Order: sequence, then C-alpha cells, then structure tokens
Amino acid sequence: MKVEQDVHVREVGLRDGLQMVSTFFPTEEKMAWIAAECAAGVREIEVTSFVPVKLIAQFSDAEEVTRQALQIPGLTVMALAPNLKGAERAFSLGVHVVDYVVSVSRTHNLKNVRREREESLADFERIVSARNAAGLTGRVKLAAGLSTALGCSYEGRIAVDEVRRCAAFLAQAGAEEIMVADTVGYADPQQVREVFKSVMAEVGNIPVAAHFHDTRGTGLANVAAALDCGVRIFDASLGGLGGCPFAPGASGNIVMEDLCFMLDSMGLTTGVDLHQLLLVRDIAARNLPPNMLTGALARAGLPNHYTTAKQRAAPRS
Amino acid sequence: MKVEQDVHVREVGLRDGLQMVSTFFPTEEKMAWIAAECAAGVREIEVTSFVPVKLIAQFSDAEEVTRQALQIPGLTVMALAPNLKGAERAFSLGVHVVDYVVSVSRTHNLKNVRREREESLADFERIVSARNAAGLTGRVKLAAGLSTALGCSYEGRIAVDEVRRCAAFLAQAGAEEIMVADTVGYADPQQVREVFKSVMAEVGNIPVAAHFHDTRGTGLANVAAALDCGVRIFDASLGGLGGCPFAPGASGNIVMEDLCFMLDSMGLTTGVDLHQLLLVRDIAARNLPPNMLTGALARAGLPNHYTTAKQRAAPRS
Repeated sequence: MKVEQDVHVREVGLRDGLQMVSTFFPTEEKMAWIAAECAAGVREIEVTSFVPVKLIAQFSDAEEVTRQALQIPGLTVMALAPNLKGAERAFSLGVHVVDYVVSVSRTHNLKNVRREREESLADFERIVSARNAAGLTGRVKLAAGLSTALGCSYEGRIAVDEVRRCAAFLAQAGAEEIMVADTVGYADPQQVREVFKSVMAEVGNIPVAAHFHDTRGTGLANVAAALDCGVRIFDASLGGLGGCPFAPGASGNIVMEDLCFMLDSMGLTTGVDLHQLLLVRDIAARNLPPNMLTGALARAGLPNHYTTAKQRAAPRS
Repeated sequence: MKVEQDVHVREVGLRDGLQMVSTFFPTEEKMAWIAAECAAGVREIEVTSFVPVKLIAQFSDAEEVTRQALQIPGLTVMALAPNLKGAERAFSLGVHVVDYVVSVSRTHNLKNVRREREESLADFERIVSARNAAGLTGRVKLAAGLSTALGCSYEGRIAVDEVRRCAAFLAQAGAEEIMVADTVGYADPQQVREVFKSVMAEVGNIPVAAHFHDTRGTGLANVAAALDCGVRIFDASLGGLGGCPFAPGASGNIVMEDLCFMLDSMGLTTGVDLHQLLLVRDIAARNLPPNMLTGALARAGLPNHYTTAKQRAAPRS
C-alpha cells in the first residue's frame, strides 16, 4: 500500500551512522530497528553497505540484513555500494535501490576510495551496464550521490560548477536519482539554494535528494532552503547517529525525529507517526555506547495541543 | 565607531538565559561576559531585567550592571522592563533600549504577569508617555515584543491575525521596534513566513526583530525563513543559554555562535569575530552549573579553510 506523502524521508543511520560505530550492532537488533522504524512510517531505509567486510566489520552481515529487510512489506530497501563489486553483491540479492557515491572533491575521493574522481565517475557507467546486463532495469534503481558537494575538509568550498558537471555526468550515465550531500556539515542555506538550483536545472526530471549533516547546527535550515528549491527527498538518521571521526562530539546526520517534526509542522505529510518514531530510539540506544543519540524533539517532546499535518489536512467532522 | 553590518545580532543570554539560573552569576562576571562579547563584535546586548528583585534574585544587580554596561564604548545597552515601574527604573539610568513584552496568548499573559493582555498592551502606552514626559524621546528607544507569537504551551497555535493586531496596537502606541518571539520553541519556517510577512506588512517602516528558541531543533531554519522575509535583527544567547523550566534538558534560545556562523557563511556580515566569540563561552561556563551551554560550532569548530564573509567581501590584493 502506497502512503500518500509530500516529502520522502529516508533513514540512513544503519549505514552512515553505524559505519562510525566500532561495537557490532547485533543483526537481530538491526532488524528490530528497521522493522520498528518502517512501522512508524519511514518506508525508505538504507539498511547496510556493501563495502569489503575487512574494511568495516559492522557490515559483515550485509547479506543477511538485506535478505531480511526485503521480507518487510512496504519497505523500500536501499544499500550503499562503493564500487562495482559491491553493487553486484547488492544486485544478486534484489535490493530495491543501490546508492553509489562519488566525491566532488578530488582530494576527498582519493583519500576515501583511493581513486581519481573521474575513475569513480566511470565506475558508475560500469554499474549501470552491469545492472542492465543482469536484466534488472526497472527492478533495481540506481541512485548516484555527490559527496562533499557543499564543502570538503581538505579543499574547503567546492565550486558549484564542479558539482553541476559531476551531476550531469551521472545523469547522462543513467542515474535515476541524484543525491547531493553535505558530507562534513559545511553548508549554509544560501549555498544550498545555489547548488541545488544548479543541479536541478542540469538534470531535468531526475529526482534530486538532499543529504545533510548537522555538524554546525545548520542542518534543518538547509532542509528548509532545499524545500524552497523543490527538493522532496531527505536523508536523515535516527537520533542524528553519524558524524565525523575527526570531530569528537560533533553531531552527525540531521536528526530524523527533528526533520519529521519540522516537515509535519510545516504542513508537509511524511507518512511518519512522530510518537511512534520517538519510541524507535530505544532500540538504537540499547545497542550503542551511551549518549550517542541526539535530538531536540526527543528532549523537549512534541508541543502541547500538537496536531499532525495529516490531522490538519483531514476534513473536520 | 559604527561597524557596517548586514544583520544585527543581539545577545539576550544575560536576561533570557540567566533568568532561568538560580545560582547568582556574580556582577563582575556578568560585566566580563558583556565586555568580552562586545569586543567580539556583538554590539547590542540585553544586559538585565528590571523585574522586582523579590521575583528574580538574579537581577538584584540590575542597576549596577546597567550603569557599568553604559560605560562600554560602542555598546547598545538593552534591558527588559515587564511594566511601567521597571521601565522607569531603566529610564532613570539612561538605558539605550527598553524592551517591553506582551504575550499574544491571553492565557500566557495572565499566567506570566497576572494581567489581561489588553491591560499589558495599554501599559505600553503609559510607558511611551512616561518616556516622552521624561524628555527621553530619541534617547531611549522603546522596543515592544510579542511573546508566544508562534505558539503557546497553554493555547497551542496562535492565530496570525491576533499577532498582527497586537503588533498594530504597539506600533500605533509608539513602538520603535516590534520583536516577534517564539517563546516556547514551537515555530516552523512556514509559520515564520506567514507571521512575519503579516506583521511586517502591518507595521510599515518599523523594524521587526525575531526572537527564536531552538527547543525542537528548528531555530536556525526559522532564522533562514525570517531572513527571506527581510528580517535583519535576531536575538540569540551565547551557548544557547535559556530554555524552559518545564522541559528539562531542552535547549533554549538559538545559539549565538551558530547563528553568527550561519549568517557569516551565507555572506551576511554581522561584525562578529567567530573565533573571539567562541572564547567568550569560557566566561559564561565558569559561572554556571556544568553542561548548561550547548552549540554545534563550539563542538565541531569552524570548517577548515573557512574565510569570513568580511574576508570574502574584501577586494583581493
């Protein structure tokens, strides 16, 4: 059953969050998190990453998590693949969406995947070919992400034109979605407007998603700016799980609960039950080191007399 | 010397923050905070509140703090006055700006100052008359604030038309600035746009300031929305000091450091040196119970290769 929604919110904490956590999060608990958050209305979840197991042990259960997630009715199962080999693992399981990522910053791309940016871009063409050759066109969706599109810890500001050109390449290569990411939390609303407008003008009808970190407090302001540009797909993580290993205590991805509250409060339906979503935090918290989760809504609670966007939209009887 | 700036940021932590703190913050330390933050470039500071001392002992040094603050060159000294008596205390000292506040929510106004909203509105007329009778027109500026304009813990959502009508009354009565406040942190960017557009259309050329709390994470998103409406005056508090006694752990006013970072990053000059501003936190922290200060910029630090708005605006040599 398709839930009608104005904005798509996607949970990335099990990938972008857990990749920073060295303690293994038990597979059955990952599944409990995924099931509970899906039940709360978050129907698009990046469940794992198909990186080499020797690199990140947290994802040693990538196959198992994916297989089980695919059994959950109504859930769109997304997974990250850093290269063709990872994508092939994801294809073989029938993942709904494979997320591939290239850094716009050449230095970041080199440090992150030890390849030139242009090699990484070319790899996406090979992934598209492999998907098509496997007869999975229309069944496995390919999303291409642009990391460090709004700033890089090595290079600082990234030229808008560089972002636009990478987006154009990926769109041309067959990306069915372009994701623009503020990987290190440098973005401000003005910059978000410039970059997203430029990318959206370039890629035409291909949906453009936003992936913001809240490292310097501007996360939701950037969401508001992206909404103004027409963006309707946002990544976030439960309790803001994630962050940067080089900035201890810094917050990570924007907080799913706070994102959903803001959108709902603005009258935009997300399909998410805020009360139920807040309860999912317990599952994450009990498997993580203390105090890893953040979030303003969880601390303050919903406003008194709060009515959801759905309730407000419903005809009064 | 007037510093050129696109946006005025005003420190309210010494009033809106400290009013929640039962431990007395020593007078000389309040002065150290004010002087250091002024030196960092925050040139408008609400230094105290002229409430009855028996109500809030934190402000028992209101006269002394005001007198000393008025000695700091370049500082605009603001102070809250909850009624005519408080305003008269402020007038006698020659405070630059007296902030008077009325709650748009009738219930909140009754609970807060034990008067009907209309009585509170009428009191502002008496304050204007008293200021004028004292020959202080043009020397003491009167700013009128609308509390709970974006939501109330007793009444929930507040009708935009109620806010507009209160603003109209205060403007008519002689307010030289209208401040619109999200006292309990309920606002979202969409609502901010509606309310500020309505108020600004109503009051014509009178400047409209925004006072946001970050209770549910939407503080800076609301700033971005208000900027879009043309608002150029923002209240904030160092380390987000403030909050609500009924929501333990909830964040309070928007964080001054994060606000300045976002504005600066957007290319808007504030006159504030971000590095120097971050150092002022130490003065506040050493006089407060542990862990009262929040703030993303303080945790994460400035982005690498960060250049300030001022540096970017300067012609390259």
